[in-house]
Amino acid sequence: MRLRNITNARKKLEQRPELIVLDPAQHSGQWKKLFANNNPIYLEIGMGKGQFICCMSERLPDINFLGLEKYDSIALKALQKLIVNPRPNVILLRGEAENLLNYFSANEIQRIYLNFSDPWPRKSNIKRRLTYSDFLDKYKNILAHGGDIHIKTDNRAFFEFTLRHMNEYGMAFDSISLNLHAEEPKSNIRTEYEISRSAAGALIYQLICRFK
Amino acid sequence: MRLRNITNARKKLEQRPELIVLDPAQHSGQWKKLFANNNPIYLEIGMGKGQFICCMSERLPDINFLGLEKYDSIALKALQKLIVNPRPNVILLRGEAENLLNYFSANEIQRIYLNFSDPWPRKSNIKRRLTYSDFLDKYKNILAHGGDIHIKTDNRAFFEFTLRHMNEYGMAFDSISLNLHAEEPKSNIRTEYEISRSAAGALIYQLICRFK
Repeated sequence: MRLRNITNARKKLEQRPELIVLDPAQHSGQWKKLFANNNPIYLEIGMGKGQFICCMSERLPDINFLGLEKYDSIALKALQKLIVNPRPNVILLRGEAENLLNYFSANEIQRIYLNFSDPWPRKSNIKRRLTYSDFLDKYKNILAHGGDIHIKTDNRAFFEFTLRHMNEYGMAFDSISLNLHAEEPKSNIRTEYEISRSAAGALIYQLICRFK
Repeated sequence: MRLRNITNARKKLEQRPELIVLDPAQHSGQWKKLFANNNPIYLEIGMGKGQFICCMSERLPDINFLGLEKYDSIALKALQKLIVNPRPNVILLRGEAENLLNYFSANEIQRIYLNFSDPWPRKSNIKRRLTYSDFLDKYKNILAHGGDIHIKTDNRAFFEFTLRHMNEYGMAFDSISLNLHAEEPKSNIRTEYEISRSAAGALIYQLICRFK
């Protein structure tokens, strides 16, 4: 997701250290302590403006949610939602997916959400796609046994790539939908982007998968 | 594919034994002899009215094509095409996919085409789908090393099932398209059904896969 840069976004993030962690590495292996409970942790990588994580955390109060975002200006939008409507089971992180292994210890995460990740359409950028094998290696490390990955996208080429690549990696597919909104499960929470793309007639694809 | 029953279809098939084999089991392991050459054999399971196999055989004269069809009336439509435009590299078979192991010996087939197979939408009929594991077992047996399976369908649920099921079976995905006609490869031959479904706005899905 791209957004106009917001002046002093970083400074504004720094004012709410109880809601957003700017140096996630310092809590590696200690996230449950920060939540002060032993509930499972679901991680959204690229949380965008935070609509999804806020709704999910309301719906599932017994799950801890972490929202990772690399752009300050976007993280600030999510932070503002959280300030208006504080959630005890949500913490935001300013960080990059490349550094996941610094942020989390092995088996610390129960579920990963990848919602409408940047499709990086050029072949030269294939390694930046969040479903590329280098990232899968990291997910495999931080995911607990039985943990899964929930992927949504409206980008056909990205979804074709993801299916092919995850098959090649040897992952198990629990569920595939090539038109999620045709028979939308009640459990689905639409992101801001999902709402606008669906209204424009785009198909929403979903894959739920896990490591064997 | 369903078609109005044609009176005496079986009798009409019997009149052209050089074009359609009514007892495929008798040629098991001997198909290349029947073609009188050593070219690879591509098998279409459920050839319908034969448009696909006729076009493919013209385009690839160095490949032997076998078209399997279980309904006499439909096989007759394909036979009529072949009578008008005889092809030395095409033989039709009247038979059922369930009996593939009786028709072919191990490794005898280089490629299998499944074009717009009956999706059998009811869960109770799951075992009838031509991408169900019982059929995959048979395909694995008759396919030569390096052989592949080319699947096209416009049925979303069938394609979702196929992707999930073939991944579970441990097959490798060489290519996935969720909208084949968006960037249609020159190699694609549209079947009669594909033409009409595409004109009606349906998406055409394709999977090319193989056993590891």
